[in-house]
Amino acid sequence: MAKRQIYLDDIPLDEARAILQAALAAAGAASPLVGERVALADALGRVTAEPVRALISSPQFHCAAMDGYAVSASATASARETQALPLRLGVEAFPVNTGDPLPDGANAVIMIENVNHQTDSTILIYASAAPWQHVRLMGEDMVATETILQVNHQLRPVDLGALAGCGHQQVAVRRKPRVLIIPTGGELVPIDKKPERGQLIEYNSLILSSQIRAAGGEAQVTDIIGDDEKALRAALADALASKPDLILILSGSSAGSHDFSARTIDALGEALVHGVAVRPGHPVIIGMAAAIPVIGVPGYPVSAALTGELFIVPLIRQWLGLAMPESATIEATSTRKITSPIGDDDFVRVALAAIDGRVLATPLQRGAGVITSLVEADGLAHIPRFHEGVDRGDKLNVALYRPPSSIEGTALIMGSHDPMLDLLATHIRERSVDQRLASVNVGSLGGLIALRRGEAHLAGCHLFHPETKTYNIPFVQRYLGEDEVALVTFAQREQGLILPPGNPLGIASIADLHGLRYINRQRGAGTRVLFDHLLAQHEISADEIDGYEHEEYTHLAVAAAVADGIGDCGMGLRGAAEAMGLDFIGLTWEHFDLAIPKRHLEFAPVRTLLAVLEDDAFKRELGAQSGYRSDETGRFIDF
Amino acid sequence: MAKRQIYLDDIPLDEARAILQAALAAAGAASPLVGERVALADALGRVTAEPVRALISSPQFHCAAMDGYAVSASATASARETQALPLRLGVEAFPVNTGDPLPDGANAVIMIENVNHQTDSTILIYASAAPWQHVRLMGEDMVATETILQVNHQLRPVDLGALAGCGHQQVAVRRKPRVLIIPTGGELVPIDKKPERGQLIEYNSLILSSQIRAAGGEAQVTDIIGDDEKALRAALADALASKPDLILILSGSSAGSHDFSARTIDALGEALVHGVAVRPGHPVIIGMAAAIPVIGVPGYPVSAALTGELFIVPLIRQWLGLAMPESATIEATSTRKITSPIGDDDFVRVALAAIDGRVLATPLQRGAGVITSLVEADGLAHIPRFHEGVDRGDKLNVALYRPPSSIEGTALIMGSHDPMLDLLATHIRERSVDQRLASVNVGSLGGLIALRRGEAHLAGCHLFHPETKTYNIPFVQRYLGEDEVALVTFAQREQGLILPPGNPLGIASIADLHGLRYINRQRGAGTRVLFDHLLAQHEISADEIDGYEHEEYTHLAVAAAVADGIGDCGMGLRGAAEAMGLDFIGLTWEHFDLAIPKRHLEFAPVRTLLAVLEDDAFKRELGAQSGYRSDETGRFIDF
Repeated sequence: MAKRQIYLDDIPLDEARAILQAALAAAGAASPLVGERVALADALGRVTAEPVRALISSPQFHCAAMDGYAVSASATASARETQALPLRLGVEAFPVNTGDPLPDGANAVIMIENVNHQTDSTILIYASAAPWQHVRLMGEDMVATETILQVNHQLRPVDLGALAGCGHQQVAVRRKPRVLIIPTGGELVPIDKKPERGQLIEYNSLILSSQIRAAGGEAQVTDIIGDDEKALRAALADALASKPDLILILSGSSAGSHDFSARTIDALGEALVHGVAVRPGHPVIIGMAAAIPVIGVPGYPVSAALTGELFIVPLIRQWLGLAMPESATIEATSTRKITSPIGDDDFVRVALAAIDGRVLATPLQRGAGVITSLVEADGLAHIPRFHEGVDRGDKLNVALYRPPSSIEGTALIMGSHDPMLDLLATHIRERSVDQRLASVNVGSLGGLIALRRGEAHLAGCHLFHPETKTYNIPFVQRYLGEDEVALVTFAQREQGLILPPGNPLGIASIADLHGLRYINRQRGAGTRVLFDHLLAQHEISADEIDGYEHEEYTHLAVAAAVADGIGDCGMGLRGAAEAMGLDFIGLTWEHFDLAIPKRHLEFAPVRTLLAVLEDDAFKRELGAQSGYRSDETGRFIDF
Repeated sequence: MAKRQIYLDDIPLDEARAILQAALAAAGAASPLVGERVALADALGRVTAEPVRALISSPQFHCAAMDGYAVSASATASARETQALPLRLGVEAFPVNTGDPLPDGANAVIMIENVNHQTDSTILIYASAAPWQHVRLMGEDMVATETILQVNHQLRPVDLGALAGCGHQQVAVRRKPRVLIIPTGGELVPIDKKPERGQLIEYNSLILSSQIRAAGGEAQVTDIIGDDEKALRAALADALASKPDLILILSGSSAGSHDFSARTIDALGEALVHGVAVRPGHPVIIGMAAAIPVIGVPGYPVSAALTGELFIVPLIRQWLGLAMPESATIEATSTRKITSPIGDDDFVRVALAAIDGRVLATPLQRGAGVITSLVEADGLAHIPRFHEGVDRGDKLNVALYRPPSSIEGTALIMGSHDPMLDLLATHIRERSVDQRLASVNVGSLGGLIALRRGEAHLAGCHLFHPETKTYNIPFVQRYLGEDEVALVTFAQREQGLILPPGNPLGIASIADLHGLRYINRQRGAGTRVLFDHLLAQHEISADEIDGYEHEEYTHLAVAAAVADGIGDCGMGLRGAAEAMGLDFIGLTWEHFDLAIPKRHLEFAPVRTLLAVLEDDAFKRELGAQSGYRSDETGRFIDF
């Protein structure tokens, strides 16, 4: 029971940060790191450790700013448009190219265009020259000893040029903060090992070391430490002996009985914070040992990544002398009610889309184990401590993971997710670098409801209507009205029973499902509507199907469950079955169509999407997929 | 005269880009580059060359989402709060840690907190378990064969984690575009050589190669080619033979007689564009040779850097499959009238400051040779073709070179520039990573006028008032009114005559300046006011001073002109003279004060500035500078 203490001890984010800062200050480790000299060619993105002064002036001499002739201005006073003045070459006028130093006595340049050659040894000019005309004065750009760059400045290409221009070959930059990462967990294998049953691939160290590198630090990852408290203590002692700036202990899981991190930090130093009131990411540990900060990072990948963003990246930047990273933020309208624990700072991954002049945020799956929710997120909404959440229609403050223009260029499709929508998305991206198809899977009916609420640009659906024996049209009519929505065929797909290889139970049809473990789809999914229809045809009630309540959200998930032996049979696409090496009994070809409100037909990414659907190469590629027909792809359906 | 053709041929920016794109398409070089496989640890920031699918599911098995006991839900149905149900360990209940696979037959997890140990072999539970509770389903995150990342996606830390999590050790990313850079110009020396008189340091290749690297490309720089058309042709032929994606020929100067770039490109291919109507940056050449684009980059560093931003970085991103880079933009009010050539897209470097609720843009020096103007710029204002410029008070659209918060944290000082203001700026930056002192040098009077117009937060001035024999107070009263402005002493400084080493002409005072070449300061500069006062004291008229019209803008520039033998004497600070190893005859100690409108006294960066002025360490450092006294530093002056 002692373990639960960690959670009860959760302290607010700001307080946790303040404790860390106080501990760093006490250990003399809060200031930017000292400098090291690096060649200019290696200094891009590094941060100056001191102000940099010019070693030489630039230019180092008065020089010609134009091609022409250097002269003494006073010697040209009598030249007029109507009374050309001859100047002797090499005596009163000296040919110069841009950048050439002025000869002694010269203090002006006459442009070559304004000179006529009288002879090989004299030129004619038609106007007097003002002193210093077309001359770049010595030091015009930089004067020796002048400060060119301030301390704590992140070096850009032009800065490197300026430093070279005033005589530097090297520059003193902050040493890169060095982070040592210790992954722990007996169930983990490194990414170059194939996991066996019960093993998980350890990739949190890859996420964190990449975050650290992107922020300007250096990261080194030790071998994975198994569930062995002594080994972890030895690893931490070794880590401390190598004197890095920061040590991370990555937990294999959030609060398992093998979570020795806090005890180990306490053994060699002091764990100051046992849990921070942020979601996801609760079980963060912050400690100090031998004047080195040690952070215990939670095991779920989303929590680990967020711990990196909230605690580790800011620390790297602090040691580099940089301000906190700034991400662009946007105000978006939530399409869902979001419930937040009142004591936590809650960070919600959201998909964003600009629809009908508003930016809408749809929360993505919230499990901290689902790294793809972070991969797919367009931004992170922050619901601060002491807020219980937001209602549908409330405003959210979203830190963007993509440039704002990318949100403007995104068509959001909700509804049923066909795996070939990814092929469509690939073709859209290949056609236009600033357009994108984003997809949120809510099932066929969910997609139509999202369209009615104005929460998506288009919806994918494959809803069979038994009375009319048609697909989709009656549902679109019922949910959206017929005048305002276009229905475009995406593909015809073969639906059927997904079975283990070799069909060991000898299933031939829906009638054979009695007594088997069935894998179902979620309510509102087109495949579930179809399955219910087939059950009714066979006069089978849902109660008779073992596993009717086992809901998966995609065709691939159904196939994977069958492949893993979790179920004996599921319904889904031929493509999904074959992708997993499973048997398949085809039952029907269905229509997968795209419902598109007519007001979105001229939206650029939707136009690109429609162009792809009419593209012969795309149709061939789609039609070549097992279980797909593309002869009607791109056709607008009359209704 | 043929050379001028290049300028007469200037074509608009959009047209130049379209010509380049058409040529790339014709050469089959417009598409993103093919992929190469790299290890995930090396893939940060690279761009996917194809969609990436999951190789294995994650998790690969149903697993515990909590620490506790795996059970079969149906076996727990009878458990009640009031009627504990015993379960036999290893038979009906299996201890699991988070992440462990469920044993066969189990389909739910009961949290460890909700279990009591009855004996070593049985546990008691007090509630039934719902099927799949606290279970992460196989494939919850990723299902094998599912598309995890789209093509043309720049890889972030979380993406790398997701790829590792679904079985990848490598990823196919776009090959880095390879750019070959040929610097030309007989006057140029590489950055590791000390330039002799008449030589300039070649650093444009450093700027451009850094821009290319920052954008994701690879750059290689050849030796500098002197003024030798044959050698350049050979270098270009060699470059073409090595088949890079892009070749840059860097001109030593804008349109000198040794500018062979266009002819050389024409000899080995075709120069398609001879000059683009952008400022700065006119003399851009765009050509194709052997199906490889060749860009002639102008020689002035600001033009070169802008050519990089306008043409080269976008090309690198195109080859990587990325959209154009997006910089945050801001609408700012111009503090100056800006005249733009009507036919050009004009890009104006500006300093930005947030003052009285408005963001103000002050144009910086416009010479294309002044790289520091780009270093100091907070952003780039774009005045489009067909606009003649803007008036003072007009809105400008500014692409930011700094994050917006950095603008909010900037105190802008205008007026006279004391070199020790750089020391002040260093101390401010060291105290706060998000505050900054920016300085625009307009002379003492200019600074007071800027304050009156609300264009700066504070002004530096050292204006002697002969009638009252005081510094600054009468001027502040006249320009600003006395109630609204505080005057704070920055330092006392020793002003005097700056002379060549050893004082070869034996100058002792102002009275000795007859017949010498004097270096003056610009109108409105405090040093000029002082000089005029001293001339009047000695009853010398300005006409009698040779060089009175030779205006420099800073103390260091005056000292540099004396050091270079351009003048025999100037007036300025002891510090400037000593920095250049010159002789100095002190004439007076003057007050350099900061005028600060009282409404800005609570502005955070100004408060930091005032705290630095009161800091003993800062005062000691300032007072230890030759020619400075800091005993009154930080004192508010009563008036």
